[in-house]
Amino acid sequence: MIQRLKQRIEAARGDIPADLVLKGGEVINLFSCEILHTDVAVHDGMIVGLGEYEGLQNIDVQGRYVCPGFMDGHFHIESSMLSPEELARAVLPRGTTAIVADPHEIANVMGKEGIRYILKSSEDLPLDIYMMLPSCVPATDLETSGARLSAQELLAFKGQPRVLGLGEMMNYPGVIHGVDSVLEKIAAFNHSTKDGHAPLVSGKELNAYIAADIRSDHECTVLEEAKEKLRLGMFIMIREGTQAKNLKTLLPLVSPATVRRCMLVTDDLHPHDLLEKGHLNHLLDLAVAQGIDPILAIQMVTLNPARYFGFKDLGAIAPGYRADMVVLSSLQPVGIDMVLKGGEIVFQEGQVKPGRARQDAANHFTSMRIYPYGPDTFAVRQMGSHMRVIRLIRDQIVTMCEVVGVPNTGLVISDPEQDLLKVAVVERHHATGNVGIGFVKGFGLKQGALASSVAHDSHNIVCVGCNDQDMYVAVKDIETMGGGLAAANHGQVVAHLPLPIGGLMSDRPLHEVARGWEKMREVANHLGSRTEQPFMALSFLALPVIPELKITDRGLVDVNRFEHVPLFT
Amino acid sequence: MIQRLKQRIEAARGDIPADLVLKGGEVINLFSCEILHTDVAVHDGMIVGLGEYEGLQNIDVQGRYVCPGFMDGHFHIESSMLSPEELARAVLPRGTTAIVADPHEIANVMGKEGIRYILKSSEDLPLDIYMMLPSCVPATDLETSGARLSAQELLAFKGQPRVLGLGEMMNYPGVIHGVDSVLEKIAAFNHSTKDGHAPLVSGKELNAYIAADIRSDHECTVLEEAKEKLRLGMFIMIREGTQAKNLKTLLPLVSPATVRRCMLVTDDLHPHDLLEKGHLNHLLDLAVAQGIDPILAIQMVTLNPARYFGFKDLGAIAPGYRADMVVLSSLQPVGIDMVLKGGEIVFQEGQVKPGRARQDAANHFTSMRIYPYGPDTFAVRQMGSHMRVIRLIRDQIVTMCEVVGVPNTGLVISDPEQDLLKVAVVERHHATGNVGIGFVKGFGLKQGALASSVAHDSHNIVCVGCNDQDMYVAVKDIETMGGGLAAANHGQVVAHLPLPIGGLMSDRPLHEVARGWEKMREVANHLGSRTEQPFMALSFLALPVIPELKITDRGLVDVNRFEHVPLFT
Repeated sequence: MIQRLKQRIEAARGDIPADLVLKGGEVINLFSCEILHTDVAVHDGMIVGLGEYEGLQNIDVQGRYVCPGFMDGHFHIESSMLSPEELARAVLPRGTTAIVADPHEIANVMGKEGIRYILKSSEDLPLDIYMMLPSCVPATDLETSGARLSAQELLAFKGQPRVLGLGEMMNYPGVIHGVDSVLEKIAAFNHSTKDGHAPLVSGKELNAYIAADIRSDHECTVLEEAKEKLRLGMFIMIREGTQAKNLKTLLPLVSPATVRRCMLVTDDLHPHDLLEKGHLNHLLDLAVAQGIDPILAIQMVTLNPARYFGFKDLGAIAPGYRADMVVLSSLQPVGIDMVLKGGEIVFQEGQVKPGRARQDAANHFTSMRIYPYGPDTFAVRQMGSHMRVIRLIRDQIVTMCEVVGVPNTGLVISDPEQDLLKVAVVERHHATGNVGIGFVKGFGLKQGALASSVAHDSHNIVCVGCNDQDMYVAVKDIETMGGGLAAANHGQVVAHLPLPIGGLMSDRPLHEVARGWEKMREVANHLGSRTEQPFMALSFLALPVIPELKITDRGLVDVNRFEHVPLFT
Repeated sequence: MIQRLKQRIEAARGDIPADLVLKGGEVINLFSCEILHTDVAVHDGMIVGLGEYEGLQNIDVQGRYVCPGFMDGHFHIESSMLSPEELARAVLPRGTTAIVADPHEIANVMGKEGIRYILKSSEDLPLDIYMMLPSCVPATDLETSGARLSAQELLAFKGQPRVLGLGEMMNYPGVIHGVDSVLEKIAAFNHSTKDGHAPLVSGKELNAYIAADIRSDHECTVLEEAKEKLRLGMFIMIREGTQAKNLKTLLPLVSPATVRRCMLVTDDLHPHDLLEKGHLNHLLDLAVAQGIDPILAIQMVTLNPARYFGFKDLGAIAPGYRADMVVLSSLQPVGIDMVLKGGEIVFQEGQVKPGRARQDAANHFTSMRIYPYGPDTFAVRQMGSHMRVIRLIRDQIVTMCEVVGVPNTGLVISDPEQDLLKVAVVERHHATGNVGIGFVKGFGLKQGALASSVAHDSHNIVCVGCNDQDMYVAVKDIETMGGGLAAANHGQVVAHLPLPIGGLMSDRPLHEVARGWEKMREVANHLGSRTEQPFMALSFLALPVIPELKITDRGLVDVNRFEHVPLFT
């Protein structure tokens, strides 16, 4: 270690040539908030000097900008549907060199094994994948998840390399009301960073939540909400992802005086958005288009997340910092020319440098354990004159509960003419045989069935369909694939996207996954679906923490009352 | 722990009364950079809520400001000449609730025992005393210090409560040139905070110094120097102490964009300045008078040092932060009405709340081990026709070397008429018998002798005098006191200030020590001294790292050549 330190010092002094020098660039200085014309010398993976340097390798970056690599402070890998290896290949060309992942979804499916998979498969990648441990597995007791993680089980990961703390504490009612099992987790991560998740919580309840030492929030949707949280000491993660878009609303929060407490994050980014819009580079463009100074915008994806998570060697171009850098052809819009990770060029001329061989992670994950079922599993016997129906609201994940009359037919079936479709959740973790069945309006499917093993947060198999046979075929196909998305019609699978890693993630590259996702959307629309993103709508039908009426493997949930309710009233 | 957490949450929620509520104050919010009218609820030593609260105790602070307690990020306790207990009593009324001390001086005298004394005597004080371990003991090999501290010895303290990292790395040439013993210390404190000290270092040498992961500097004296260091990633500690005053020069560095990388520190603050001008409250007044926004100024003595040193619960008024607060009657100038530490009122109505009983720390520290000596020890036999004389420069600690002719008298003696005085350094740590003797011009003493066991950085006894007998008497008095300052005339001690703690610090309260210091100055001036602060000038005569000619127990040092030189040329 002393020899390495000595060599770095010699390179900084200019007494030995640095490994690499970026010559004559416009360097974004996030400490002084200036752009400085200077060389950047890199040695042994670290930045060692700014000034005039000569290296063993010299790269002319005149007329281009040199910027620290981008860091996404709150990111769910599962939403990208990519394995960590493929995620690295996907985000490096977009300037990202570090993400902080909360493997909440895969942990709900596979528990500690899922966390270990993410840690293991992200070792030695050219993308730093840090982890905040999922704090809320399962999200509720209203459904059957694949795993439960207690404070004790989370502690097994504390202190491991790249594990930074406790992930978003979604159970804010549990914190605010001092529930023991929740406080145990907070106490277990005393002195560690703890991320928050407290949508619209304010006043004394917000004070209570923050008094439990939770210091960030990415759920602000209203400017005043963000102001209150910032004043009370939270770091504000301004989120702009596929599902939730809060950037324009929240940017007025950002000023030179407040920026140090702000970050830009994506939270959930689906493969098509990642492919077509980009990652943090896209958020920078949006922020600058809204009038934010580019240097302040860059601070929010570099120095600020680095400081929040306690890194002293990330997020800036200065001696002693890791040589994770992006060379930009332009600032507005952000044009990514070259990306360096630890001083190595990992993206150049449109190409990601080949990393290690792709691992067939899918082999490790047979996550489907389903009690035998058939088409008749989805049959619903009439048990009353009226039933509760989930009413979708366009482009929202909240739903309404609608009570409709039931024709006196013995069995209640889908009625596509009336846009009344059967929706089922099939438990797939422990072969319990649980199947929850309800009905949904607003989905618009005219024929066939759609099914998905991505079904927040427990990721059982959720299926919507016009008839029981196609529902069975779609669910069966997902079981056969070991997870994924499927569409069936006339008793046949018409399209599917395998997601063999926990039923959540593909082992294929971004463009294939994005194309597959797009294909599934087209097929669903062809089958009559009226929603913009049918498989996203489907996956959120099963999320029993978002009001008003949702479906789980154990039946319908009235989210406002936080309890199960029968189908028939 | 969970029960305490639960109670804090209940108090934050308002379901149980908080221990204490500051009602209706103007709260300085350092996150949003606003002043907000709100109550502050405190429970179990922590701030738990902002908003409307009722407590078991309610204090009306309407019309007053509520501010986090001040934190001095770089402070040498020894310069205050106060024991930690008395320092707490001295700085709390001035708004300081935390200091980061580098016990460099006492460690030079007593080594690890000195560090242990500071840690032990500052336990459970109403002032948080944190420590950066002294990195450069001894400062040089040109003199005899009381102790040597290797990386291995420093490591014994790493990880102890309140030990934050490695203190100011004064041996910047050693870092820049990669000296093993220096790099060992840096490597030993890998991942810990390491303070810098690099006066006027710039360019590639500065890059080299910072590449060794040293991330702060308090030695900037020129604005451009501070700008360069800030750009290269150093936190800039803007210093304004008794000896070095850099605040006005450096304040133009501070803007909303850069302030997060800036702090205000005092470094060395003598008792009379502390008593008469104040501590960080005085620096705030100076900064605001220079046009700095009061909220930015306060950031530099609260949130910014807290973040630099990695504290997540210090430096702001927000839930989950320690209830270390100052109630101000006015912002301009800063008027301290009340100070709370951990939710307890520790200063109110001009009175510090009685703390624990003062400990007689002096008993533990017999730091005087001197080889027998007498008046003739100070005799100088003429060994040449010319000699090197230290020429004081008014109000500076740098000196010049002047060569003067020597009358052919056998013995060379002081000649007060010509302002040529004998100066001696008597080794006092290991009874080596080392006595270095030289001559000084510019001190101006007309009769008697002055001596001090405060003599940077090895703190042997330094003495200047008009005759050998008075020099002997003064040095003997210091030995008898176990350290301190002494003035002798006509063979008698005419005034002294005992500093029994390592020969550096008193065990008496601030006002007594300040009065004693003032008395010593008056007596010295009465004896003819022309310097503004005779005992400070005396103590720096022995500091062999500041050019040009200095005196140590092993003789004169040519600081530019960094070697000993003989008295006679």
